[in-house]
Amino acid sequence: MGPTHDGRALQRLLDELGRLPGIGPKSAQRIAYHLLSADDEEARRLAAAIVDVKEQVHFCPVCFSYATGETCDICADHGRDRSAICVVQEPRDVTAIERTATYHGLYHVLGGVISPMDKIGPDQLHVRELLSRLTSDEVQEVILATNPNVEGETTATYLARTIAPLGVRVTRLASGLPVGGDLEYADEVTLGRAIEARREV
Amino acid sequence: MGPTHDGRALQRLLDELGRLPGIGPKSAQRIAYHLLSADDEEARRLAAAIVDVKEQVHFCPVCFSYATGETCDICADHGRDRSAICVVQEPRDVTAIERTATYHGLYHVLGGVISPMDKIGPDQLHVRELLSRLTSDEVQEVILATNPNVEGETTATYLARTIAPLGVRVTRLASGLPVGGDLEYADEVTLGRAIEARREV
Repeated sequence: MGPTHDGRALQRLLDELGRLPGIGPKSAQRIAYHLLSADDEEARRLAAAIVDVKEQVHFCPVCFSYATGETCDICADHGRDRSAICVVQEPRDVTAIERTATYHGLYHVLGGVISPMDKIGPDQLHVRELLSRLTSDEVQEVILATNPNVEGETTATYLARTIAPLGVRVTRLASGLPVGGDLEYADEVTLGRAIEARREV
Repeated sequence: MGPTHDGRALQRLLDELGRLPGIGPKSAQRIAYHLLSADDEEARRLAAAIVDVKEQVHFCPVCFSYATGETCDICADHGRDRSAICVVQEPRDVTAIERTATYHGLYHVLGGVISPMDKIGPDQLHVRELLSRLTSDEVQEVILATNPNVEGETTATYLARTIAPLGVRVTRLASGLPVGGDLEYADEVTLGRAIEARREV
């Protein structure tokens, strides 16, 4: 009754919303209710944004970040340092690193991390494409910027071993105390890493 | 960079997704990434489902549940008992009660609950429309089926007081131990209610 009775259109919307990551049946219901209550213009804008993004945005064939042109803006930018490739999990990580304004090299988006539980191995990620970019003499350093958690570390370790024979320098983002953080509140793993990675001052 | 650089289409999609209830910036990113990775057909189906639902589904002008026809299927069904109106918060509550197959009367969807914190009072809900339905001699019982939490109880109490002068019988869904539940694990409020509402056997 209700949704099922009152229109297959609603059931179809609930089904489609339910396919989205992180959207369960309850969230789908809440979103559908919101859209039905919202003015037509808002719903139309969302539908148009979905269609437009598929038409105008795709994955960069070089680094697999988002692109509107043939390649993404960073790959196309001749001002970037082409001797370094920073390897990240998702396109949003590119945005996060760009925001720091401390890195001027290129990127490579894996599209996830190695996760045997989710049946994601190197073949499900853009690893092969990364290795083929390293065959050019231009690249001298690969910076592994996967997340500092179990899966991110596993992926970084795998990549470090795979890249080593190619004679390219492989580095990893530093782990340590967050700037502005309080030693007392740091978890022991982070604090341990900070001690191990201590530097001369 | 990233999203902002690589296409206003992507930023527009993130903005529109961010307007949906329960979707924060991170969820919006995840959904956008999913849609970009998905085949065109899936994204097109979602966009079409949104447009279709707005065209085909609306709120029933009598009970404010979902409707595709002039009124919803339940209001239009002459087999339903027109002497009882069950008052619920959301259209999905109609679905939940219909699933029990124990109620054969009509419904009235409030569209929420009284919540001063969220600036929602009786005027923001379909209370006036409920009262005007009660002026017909047909209705003999109003069953208050708002959720058994603070806001749901407040709303039920308000409605009970407002409806009382109209001479219509007002009932509330029973609170008590869930069927199949274990007394030991029941919270004390539920157990207290179960004791107060004990019945002769």
